[in-house]
Amino acid sequence: MRALKDIGELAAIRRVVKRLPRRTDVVVGAGDDCAVVKARGSRSHDLLLKSDPVIEGIHFKRGAPPAAVGHKALGRVLSDIAAMGGTPCWALLDMVAPSRTPVKVLDGIYAGAIRIAKRYGVAIVGGDMSQGPALEIHAFAVGQIPRGQAVLRSGARPGHVIFATGTLGGSLKEKHLSFEPRLAEGRFLRHWATSMIDISDGLASDLRHLVEASRAGAVLDATQVPVSIAAWRMKGRRSPLEHALFDGEDFELLFTIPQRKVEAFLTAWQKAFELSCTPMGFITARKGAIELVDANQKKTTLKASGFQHFER
Amino acid sequence: MRALKDIGELAAIRRVVKRLPRRTDVVVGAGDDCAVVKARGSRSHDLLLKSDPVIEGIHFKRGAPPAAVGHKALGRVLSDIAAMGGTPCWALLDMVAPSRTPVKVLDGIYAGAIRIAKRYGVAIVGGDMSQGPALEIHAFAVGQIPRGQAVLRSGARPGHVIFATGTLGGSLKEKHLSFEPRLAEGRFLRHWATSMIDISDGLASDLRHLVEASRAGAVLDATQVPVSIAAWRMKGRRSPLEHALFDGEDFELLFTIPQRKVEAFLTAWQKAFELSCTPMGFITARKGAIELVDANQKKTTLKASGFQHFER
Repeated sequence: MRALKDIGELAAIRRVVKRLPRRTDVVVGAGDDCAVVKARGSRSHDLLLKSDPVIEGIHFKRGAPPAAVGHKALGRVLSDIAAMGGTPCWALLDMVAPSRTPVKVLDGIYAGAIRIAKRYGVAIVGGDMSQGPALEIHAFAVGQIPRGQAVLRSGARPGHVIFATGTLGGSLKEKHLSFEPRLAEGRFLRHWATSMIDISDGLASDLRHLVEASRAGAVLDATQVPVSIAAWRMKGRRSPLEHALFDGEDFELLFTIPQRKVEAFLTAWQKAFELSCTPMGFITARKGAIELVDANQKKTTLKASGFQHFER
Repeated sequence: MRALKDIGELAAIRRVVKRLPRRTDVVVGAGDDCAVVKARGSRSHDLLLKSDPVIEGIHFKRGAPPAAVGHKALGRVLSDIAAMGGTPCWALLDMVAPSRTPVKVLDGIYAGAIRIAKRYGVAIVGGDMSQGPALEIHAFAVGQIPRGQAVLRSGARPGHVIFATGTLGGSLKEKHLSFEPRLAEGRFLRHWATSMIDISDGLASDLRHLVEASRAGAVLDATQVPVSIAAWRMKGRRSPLEHALFDGEDFELLFTIPQRKVEAFLTAWQKAFELSCTPMGFITARKGAIELVDANQKKTTLKASGFQHFER
């Protein structure tokens, strides 16, 4: 009998997504960073809907600081709202925990979630607490965005330049528990980017999601990928560039800008933000192909290789 | 070091709820069946937000039919939207599963969720799949309701008559996996009920939630509680009435109607629905006291005794 480990997360998702029921007020269903739907009576704004879990042993190690776990739980869904260019408004938190869980862990998780919620003006309006085999937080967030302005994964066209905010790789060192969702940056990018996604599975995987949604390909300049200091500090067989390409949970924004707007965009960005923003390749017409060009102009093809749940 | 089992679910919830950040567009925050919030630009409708998990070993037994688990996962949150008088529109489903989970379990869960979603016109617009120690579905639903018309737990006043839809008790026999959320009934009750809640923790517990929110008390007529056939068929030490009072997961609606409207209400109800609807007591001014009157007019005080997570 086939099990989830035999097909992996992406095939499991594909299996169910095509059958999901829709409505005429759904602008974007499953398959982008958030769903986009139209609230009744509102002509000015759309709603953004997103859910994501953090699970002990999967998204954080047992013994991780509880406040960091709460921060990450809410931060993950805020990052997805950022990647649409939206503003998060309301969140629900479901907590699952073994009954032996110390009360101070509960307090710490909510303190972390409440702190990041306040920082970004998000109200926590409900949720549920339930007994279960491991510590988990499932966060649900609703954001708002001016009607029709959500930046989707699907808008990249050949020639558009590929950018990422910040630096990439080695998030396990610390950043995966302490990142800031790029909300101000996402709202700014709404006026510039043709496509956008947040980097949660890793640059290579998320660029793949973006080009597949856009029915396009991409070339990345290996010498331009913004490799983080943490990626340089990682020990093991992978090079710093490989960490930047394949590690997950950077929670930076990956997006595309039309070639003719790049100069004006970079000028505007540098006025608005201290955070770095790096051009590192361009979109091609070679559907599904992601090529990496090294310092000697040698091309190699990037395989899909981000983290997948259920895999052996 | 104190653990969750030492304080129980309700104290754990109270501990965090008071600290949760709010916004001016939040009409009702944590503490009712759903949160009620105002979408930007809409003057005609409010949004209802709700999340709830179903967890293997807690909300269903290992080996339960997967389609019934999917049905229950989405049905639970739809029942909460019913209890506000709203219409569910969009849902997200997070699935957690061990990697050994058979693919046909995945298919069955989504088939069950998709069937109930279609029946009530709900679009499933996203969610997440993640590896984890047990099978769980976390459902998040957004409903809509005409502005200001959500029926809260807090509107019951002394003298109002207490009603429940359907029959109660023994849901473990079958109903907890196959119930129908009372959506049409909830929308109808929006025009009649002064307060409403769905019966998920059990009649005694949910009536307690309702009277506490309303800063009132209640008297229940033991001879009028609508005891289900399943409650009569349960084996063990509890009487059928005790099953009706204390078993959870009936997912019927519990609500109050002003005395002067009761006759007109019952006439209208019987025209609209085949489902039974039973008056069984009234609201009192004795804050927090729930009394049960038996056939001999003997009064006993009901203790809080619904299921609480984390308790020993």
